[in-house]
Amino acid sequence: VVTGAALVGEALPGLPEIRTGDDLGSLLADAAARVGGLRAGDVVVVAHKAVAKAEGRVVALGDVEPGKRARALGAEHGKDPRLVELILRESLELVRADAGRLIARTRHGFVCANAGVDLSNAGGEEQAVLLPVDPDGSARALRARLGCAVVIGDSFGRAWRVGQAEVAIGCAGLAPLEDWRGRPDSSGRTLRATHIAVADQAAAAADLVRGKDTSEPAVRLRGLERHVLPDDGPGAAALLRAAADDLFA
Amino acid sequence: VVTGAALVGEALPGLPEIRTGDDLGSLLADAAARVGGLRAGDVVVVAHKAVAKAEGRVVALGDVEPGKRARALGAEHGKDPRLVELILRESLELVRADAGRLIARTRHGFVCANAGVDLSNAGGEEQAVLLPVDPDGSARALRARLGCAVVIGDSFGRAWRVGQAEVAIGCAGLAPLEDWRGRPDSSGRTLRATHIAVADQAAAAADLVRGKDTSEPAVRLRGLERHVLPDDGPGAAALLRAAADDLFA
Repeated sequence: VVTGAALVGEALPGLPEIRTGDDLGSLLADAAARVGGLRAGDVVVVAHKAVAKAEGRVVALGDVEPGKRARALGAEHGKDPRLVELILRESLELVRADAGRLIARTRHGFVCANAGVDLSNAGGEEQAVLLPVDPDGSARALRARLGCAVVIGDSFGRAWRVGQAEVAIGCAGLAPLEDWRGRPDSSGRTLRATHIAVADQAAAAADLVRGKDTSEPAVRLRGLERHVLPDDGPGAAALLRAAADDLFA
Repeated sequence: VVTGAALVGEALPGLPEIRTGDDLGSLLADAAARVGGLRAGDVVVVAHKAVAKAEGRVVALGDVEPGKRARALGAEHGKDPRLVELILRESLELVRADAGRLIARTRHGFVCANAGVDLSNAGGEEQAVLLPVDPDGSARALRARLGCAVVIGDSFGRAWRVGQAEVAIGCAGLAPLEDWRGRPDSSGRTLRATHIAVADQAAAAADLVRGKDTSEPAVRLRGLERHVLPDDGPGAAALLRAAADDLFA
């Protein structure tokens, strides 16, 4: 019998605004030290934007030259053609385009709005923040530095449901999925076939801890030791569904 | 500036196997008393199965007479026609049928596998547990009894991603969505249009606390006071997307 442990989430305080070239691992370690440091069984959930900025995945919108397809799609969907150009560059395919939204499959395989490209305005200059090139690799590097499991999260919209929920786009040292198929439940019955998306649920739990208008891109989760691995594990890539719809791509 | 608070999740211990007619509110209050009781700012997340069983939403599979359509679908998808019959009764429409799975829109409007019907085997008898008839109503009744916010959770599969994540199918006293559109982030920039599915994330966080093979259908979350409402609020119904695809229904 697995005993349910308490889960404790706490934002890592005092992180500066992350900039290109910052040593994010060291900044996270310093912030964690302010709340007692990190243990091997901890999970640090980091917002993708902080990772992307540290890795230089920031583009000034003014420097983007939209191509013909981007201009056409931009006109059709009422979107800035320079943003559309970036979305197309980040995408393997557009999965859906409606109501001014472009849903794309990214080069990593994630299906999300705008291929994960976020716009922001820094000092009057419009900037786009792209997803990290290799979020699982980014998570592995942070795990090596921090000595605990790492999840990189982003907010994705969902089919059939209103609102966004945080999911794991990168993961190291945490089992992304827990396989409950065939395990008996508390009454000795066999459960339905079920895989629990542990890394996505960890990202969602962490998102509840931080306010979006604070400088808190990172959260320490404690109590997930039973999902923590002795190695990097398969990463968030294991959460990508090989969709039958790919036949249409 | 909203300060990120710590989130603490703890399973309510010692709950018995829930049976039809049980006073679930009293059982939850007793279990919570073993870990210090409940405060107005708490959120209790309850697995839908416990609610459904207390409400008598359990059907002996042997008592189900499958109709013609259920027999045809069962044969086509390799599923027990009696289960298919229950799925059809619980559904407004089948959204998708593939790989032996039936994805249905339930009478509540949820889009999920098997219309949320779970099979289990109790004492050699195959039983089906249906979703509660009115999960928001069930949550409101529990909130009235417990004096804190209540979320009723179920594990749903997701488009494009492997594995299931817990979502809110019922909710009372917790804001199901947080609207961040137009709010400035920490640098004074304007965020992308974004609604955060708070109730779904609370359900996911709670699912991390309990092991599926333990008798822990309920979890207390502390630290979500800023999302707790002075009244029942709109419930999980606010999380149902009015899909354009309904044109095809």
